[in-house]
Amino acid sequence: MANNTFTGWMTHTQQTVECTLEALLPNPARAPQMLHEAMRYSTLQGGKRVRPLLAFAAGELAGADAANVARVACAVEMIHAYSLVHDDMPCMDDDVLRRGKPTCHVQYDEATALLVGDALQTLAFDVLASPLAGVDAARQLAMVKLLAHASGHAGMAGGQAIDLSSVGTALNQPELEFMHMLKTGALIRAAVLLGAYCGQVLSDAENSALDHFAKRMGLAFQVVDDVLDCEADTATLGKTAGKDAANDKPTYVSLMGLGEAKQFARDLYDDALAALAPFGDRADRLKQLADYIVARSF
Amino acid sequence: MANNTFTGWMTHTQQTVECTLEALLPNPARAPQMLHEAMRYSTLQGGKRVRPLLAFAAGELAGADAANVARVACAVEMIHAYSLVHDDMPCMDDDVLRRGKPTCHVQYDEATALLVGDALQTLAFDVLASPLAGVDAARQLAMVKLLAHASGHAGMAGGQAIDLSSVGTALNQPELEFMHMLKTGALIRAAVLLGAYCGQVLSDAENSALDHFAKRMGLAFQVVDDVLDCEADTATLGKTAGKDAANDKPTYVSLMGLGEAKQFARDLYDDALAALAPFGDRADRLKQLADYIVARSF
Repeated sequence: MANNTFTGWMTHTQQTVECTLEALLPNPARAPQMLHEAMRYSTLQGGKRVRPLLAFAAGELAGADAANVARVACAVEMIHAYSLVHDDMPCMDDDVLRRGKPTCHVQYDEATALLVGDALQTLAFDVLASPLAGVDAARQLAMVKLLAHASGHAGMAGGQAIDLSSVGTALNQPELEFMHMLKTGALIRAAVLLGAYCGQVLSDAENSALDHFAKRMGLAFQVVDDVLDCEADTATLGKTAGKDAANDKPTYVSLMGLGEAKQFARDLYDDALAALAPFGDRADRLKQLADYIVARSF
Repeated sequence: MANNTFTGWMTHTQQTVECTLEALLPNPARAPQMLHEAMRYSTLQGGKRVRPLLAFAAGELAGADAANVARVACAVEMIHAYSLVHDDMPCMDDDVLRRGKPTCHVQYDEATALLVGDALQTLAFDVLASPLAGVDAARQLAMVKLLAHASGHAGMAGGQAIDLSSVGTALNQPELEFMHMLKTGALIRAAVLLGAYCGQVLSDAENSALDHFAKRMGLAFQVVDDVLDCEADTATLGKTAGKDAANDKPTYVSLMGLGEAKQFARDLYDDALAALAPFGDRADRLKQLADYIVARSF
């Protein structure tokens, strides 16, 4: 395996995540079969696994055990997958296409999609609460709390609530940033920190530096997403393109224009990378990954 | 306070649960306000708090600290409240009345109800992962895992999936019991065990006895619910009565008839109480509570 190249590492990590999700998701031969099958449908073979990749890269920085990082990364990915299933439902974004496939409520039905999201969220906490070899229980309890905080009313779900209530209103940049910090930023930050928490204990200064990187990357990721949603077509994106503009949802592009939004993504990226300087080459993977995530929009 | 009588204890405990939920639920003055307000609307001033009462009674048996039990009991109640909000949604049971008030999606809207359920589930894990004074971190991590297992695809959510897929089909008694063991039994069992886990470490035999009690009570509770749903009118019940029969859902009453279902509840109650014998008077509160829960149907 050409794991020394970034693309080799990325492919290998994505495969590890896929295998680990395979093993952690419920057996589709067991009752309730349709729920189990739909949980697998909504989680496997999907997306670039950006959050797990961030967890693995941060785990490398902290010298973490890969098997532990894999479980933590999958817990974060399950939260992400649950949020996509619920966000796609008719009462939310009402989307029919996700990752190039029919969305869960289209493939199955709405009641199943509701339960799939619910059960994926629960499974994330089930996985994260299963003892990790060599990780102190008190630390792991703090990891569960971190994921909960990032996912709930003060994180992802809260951001989604603000997003829903902002349709058709003119958010200014601080309001848009607050929304995105919760909606996507909190879980991206959690992915980075949870990956690192699987490894050696970092100093307060190192934790702060990593946290700053994670927060800037979380925001950059959303700005890039807005840029791509404006530029790309549906086939490339694997989901319905131009939907935010059509729904009159505020985006960085609608707020600052395409050119400025691209520059803003680049500034955030520069700021994020500067925070990694104290780690030296231990942060190489994280830097390459930041490059990959933001370079999508250049 | 007349805490020595059962009704005094129950009132006092219900008030403690209400105050603790008040403090744990997000501030409605903070953004996103509507989400926070709807989370409180769906959780506060509702129901008899059967699961928290079970946690407190089991906590008394194990000599647990009341402040710890209160947090654990509220985590379980949040899971219960989230399941009610999602179950009432149009794509599930499509109910408009709950605990005598309009259901969450009627009072607010469907998108908000979806997020309220999601965020209540997350908050339950957030609360349960916050360190409890005097409880070992490894034990607390196991408590998080127990709640997750009871709530997810192998517990409550899985039971709801089986329930949905069984509408109009003829389940036999073992199938109906499997469905209820997951749908309501798992969380009732978790309430009992989590309350006890806040206290002194029990022997394996004691844990098994308590577990047997919890499983029998979980089933008895459902049989009683079916009996009440058949007998009571909407005003007494605080939710739409006779709905299961109208929806052609299998119940213990439809399966075995009203008289047999009542006898079955009494048999389960006798079996549950027998399991508590080794605890002597430490189990008095739990016995009184079992009496109260099942006596509703006599």
